[in-house]
Amino acid sequence: MKYPNNIQKKIQNPISYKNRGMDLEEELNLSNEYYLEIDKALIYKKPTPIGITTVSYSKQGKIIERAYFKEPSTLDYNGLYRGKYIEYEAKVTKNKTSFPLHNIHPHQITHIRKVLKHKGIVFLIIKINNLVYLLKGDDFIKYIDTHQRKSLPYDFIKTTGYLIKFGFNPPLDYLKLVDQIFFKEE
Amino acid sequence: MKYPNNIQKKIQNPISYKNRGMDLEEELNLSNEYYLEIDKALIYKKPTPIGITTVSYSKQGKIIERAYFKEPSTLDYNGLYRGKYIEYEAKVTKNKTSFPLHNIHPHQITHIRKVLKHKGIVFLIIKINNLVYLLKGDDFIKYIDTHQRKSLPYDFIKTTGYLIKFGFNPPLDYLKLVDQIFFKEE
Repeated sequence: MKYPNNIQKKIQNPISYKNRGMDLEEELNLSNEYYLEIDKALIYKKPTPIGITTVSYSKQGKIIERAYFKEPSTLDYNGLYRGKYIEYEAKVTKNKTSFPLHNIHPHQITHIRKVLKHKGIVFLIIKINNLVYLLKGDDFIKYIDTHQRKSLPYDFIKTTGYLIKFGFNPPLDYLKLVDQIFFKEE
Repeated sequence: MKYPNNIQKKIQNPISYKNRGMDLEEELNLSNEYYLEIDKALIYKKPTPIGITTVSYSKQGKIIERAYFKEPSTLDYNGLYRGKYIEYEAKVTKNKTSFPLHNIHPHQITHIRKVLKHKGIVFLIIKINNLVYLLKGDDFIKYIDTHQRKSLPYDFIKTTGYLIKFGFNPPLDYLKLVDQIFFKEE
């Protein structure tokens, strides 16, 4: 084992996080599983894009021996709800006063603009100060187009975003807000 | 290097296939890049789902040292077109008389039913006898629900599917057919 350039880290159990405090991704994954079970929506987290450089073949099948993470050009979650295309990105910040914009890649900002143009439902889910907010894609774009800032102030998120309440199941019932925000005219 | 259980295979150039005959995936990826460029649709191939077991950290960032392929539960491609959710799977068969159904996982068949129920556009793109057909999700489901077969006969694909013509750019202009098939009432 080499140090510091090649620290190996074994992920003991890549799936179950049941025994520790849930993070935002886990809360959303469980919420999406719940929506899937009750047949309310089909929303999945996209696998992280990777570039594979080496594979090997064993009795158990094809094994990836070496790969690297690629930068995402779309958002983390997408799917189908009430006949509409829905896509969002979920991010946590430990900052208390603002959400740093380097959390969202430039490609992803371009993508949000395109989803808006093609009439999809698109938003950010931001966890800040242990509260989870839904920020509409068009509100987000409007803000960055009119402000020369490198972060979204917490005040802006609080006043423009929508607070998602925590629950038992689903942990984050964000589709209740999607109904109110994106389907209000129907 | 161990043989036969651990044959290592280096993928020299995981991205460019420019110098060899294009396969279906490449044709669809190029078509989707074209649609993206002309701002006609936002359709992406989902990264193959993998389970990561070992990562290491280097100067270049996080490197995956070991991972395995997971079985997909959704279809390969999804996105947004003309305000609608669109999803499809692309498969090639070397069989000349039929398309073996083991190419589509049971989870994927369940998923196709759900997309139909939630009013998304869903279909298969099947390359057989060097021709590429679009088969509507509901035609596919109707067939497997009424036939006790392990494959789709080529005759069924020819008569029920829609032939996608090859072109220069995009190589496979399947959205032209999507317009005719799924938007005809508008």
